[in-house]
Amino acid sequence: MYPETFEGFAISSADQWQNPKRFEFKPKPFGDYDIDVKIIACGVCGSDVHTATGGWGNKIWPVVPGHEIIGHAVKVGPKVTTVKVGDRVGVGAQIFACLECDACKEDNETYCKKLLDTYASIYPDGTVAHGGYSSHIRAHEHFTFAIPDGLQTELAAPMLCAGLTAYSPLVRNGVGFGKKVGIVGIGGIGHYGILFAKALGATTYAISRSRAKEADARKMGADGFLATKEENWSSEHEMTFDFILCTASSDDGFDLAPYLSLLKTHGRFIAVGLPEGAGWKVRPQSLIANGCLIGSSHLGSRKETLEMLKIAAEQNIKSWVETIPVGEEGCGTALKRVHNGDVKYRFTLVDYEKQFR
Amino acid sequence: MYPETFEGFAISSADQWQNPKRFEFKPKPFGDYDIDVKIIACGVCGSDVHTATGGWGNKIWPVVPGHEIIGHAVKVGPKVTTVKVGDRVGVGAQIFACLECDACKEDNETYCKKLLDTYASIYPDGTVAHGGYSSHIRAHEHFTFAIPDGLQTELAAPMLCAGLTAYSPLVRNGVGFGKKVGIVGIGGIGHYGILFAKALGATTYAISRSRAKEADARKMGADGFLATKEENWSSEHEMTFDFILCTASSDDGFDLAPYLSLLKTHGRFIAVGLPEGAGWKVRPQSLIANGCLIGSSHLGSRKETLEMLKIAAEQNIKSWVETIPVGEEGCGTALKRVHNGDVKYRFTLVDYEKQFR
Repeated sequence: MYPETFEGFAISSADQWQNPKRFEFKPKPFGDYDIDVKIIACGVCGSDVHTATGGWGNKIWPVVPGHEIIGHAVKVGPKVTTVKVGDRVGVGAQIFACLECDACKEDNETYCKKLLDTYASIYPDGTVAHGGYSSHIRAHEHFTFAIPDGLQTELAAPMLCAGLTAYSPLVRNGVGFGKKVGIVGIGGIGHYGILFAKALGATTYAISRSRAKEADARKMGADGFLATKEENWSSEHEMTFDFILCTASSDDGFDLAPYLSLLKTHGRFIAVGLPEGAGWKVRPQSLIANGCLIGSSHLGSRKETLEMLKIAAEQNIKSWVETIPVGEEGCGTALKRVHNGDVKYRFTLVDYEKQFR
Repeated sequence: MYPETFEGFAISSADQWQNPKRFEFKPKPFGDYDIDVKIIACGVCGSDVHTATGGWGNKIWPVVPGHEIIGHAVKVGPKVTTVKVGDRVGVGAQIFACLECDACKEDNETYCKKLLDTYASIYPDGTVAHGGYSSHIRAHEHFTFAIPDGLQTELAAPMLCAGLTAYSPLVRNGVGFGKKVGIVGIGGIGHYGILFAKALGATTYAISRSRAKEADARKMGADGFLATKEENWSSEHEMTFDFILCTASSDDGFDLAPYLSLLKTHGRFIAVGLPEGAGWKVRPQSLIANGCLIGSSHLGSRKETLEMLKIAAEQNIKSWVETIPVGEEGCGTALKRVHNGDVKYRFTLVDYEKQFR
């Protein structure tokens, strides 16, 4: 029991991914910059499924998923300056970086070679890091974020991974007023792509296979909608987009060329979905007509996280969230439904006080 | 005969690519902005081979290759302001753009949707455009460049495609003092990559399969050399390069991942070689560790061409060129040897006065 041990809901092996079980674990030793957070909510991310099913090759079992965590600080280390006991704080998908290398010094700590994911990773001392389907999390203050008062807990939680994953590449690629931006895939991350591209002032197009989610996308703020299963879906918009954020997490039958043809000269296509399959086939020839660039993006910096939360609070940005009670049953149901794409558009696990003292 | 017709050495079909034959053709009607150039030299480009062999899918036969052209202006249209009769001028690999679209107005005329290549393309009036293995070329002044006095004709010619193809992505991606740059492939374009990256002030690494060309690369100015067939060739340099220009024109067994691992956060890998094969397999996962970007680049603008020629003249940059007399035999030999990679590092066809009156 806290403070010696934490409790969570763990997946014991890939074939048991639908059946999380109550599990007690020892956190890493408490450091001077650490904060203990008593968790009150946690978003359910596609990564949780890719890890639980072994699809991304997870080797650490059992594993407690969850990296969109909100709770209250119950203990703060002597050197912590940014959080006080009692504060409502969040922890996202990264739990460690060296904070000394060039990348870290340039607000690129998500590209630090020593980074650790929030769960399914191992601290240098050998402790396994576990996620937010649990009673507590212990995190360095650099990876612990004060949540602005205006934001509702269950709506803020999924911003800490899904929201940031969309927000960071938008701002790093100059999305704002006067820009035309495409968001491919309307799921957990994609819905934040629309919300934040719009909040940043861009003309925002949702791009999806069919028109099934068009009404939702327009409610989120999309100015336009393209359905890729329609013939010649891209031709009218060739070379008119400044930026495309691709959040599709499947690469079955994914033909990159028509998406790239939408981009203006040197426009960028950034993919943040990480399919389990073999990936895209790319010929330099399909990049040359407009000199476009393709790339990926990993989460976002602490600085961007704080900015994003501030903008979300100021502009009253509402995540589209279904809540589900944490527990063996709730976690299992959430994983299964995320696996099946059966969520609009993000789950947040709640009712932590009913499971953990 | 000029001015009604031009003469050149043409490939009649893909299976005859090694046997160019003398061929007479009619140029497009002379326009107000056009210049007739009596050719004195022309570089031999890998594109000439890819077109002559049908490897890039050429459908226009017969075709006179050649798009690294230097000659003297013998006729200038009434609206031409940048060239006088008698001037030594160059024509590169692009012969037409609309000059009115957004791309054209932003010095991105190589990305104009209406662009025409210098040969193996068809003008709106139906005239086939032929290249510089010929007596003359007719070109709009936008695509005709005064050659600075300091530059030797046979050394300047290959700059007009190969040189520019290397120069433009270097300057567009911020290559200069304090940057560490890799040039992959030491061929016609790659040798310009080294020469120009060095001229722009960057710390320049040549990257090649073996060390066979190391001595040459260092003479060109390379500060470092990496041989990719050596074990762990990339590990010491991980996340230290600002930019990589890939000029490799084969994609057999080309594994992109170790190249990308060389790049700093958001570093770029730009490929200007256009392999005939199926292309690369790319997983977003291999782009995420450093958030790098991959792309391609097409030639360069008129503005960049003039800049490049000026820098080449001022810094006395010497292309590594073998000359070969123009003619059925010379053109055939040059194509065969370029096909076999048997050239250090570029051919220029010369002795035009012996073949054409």
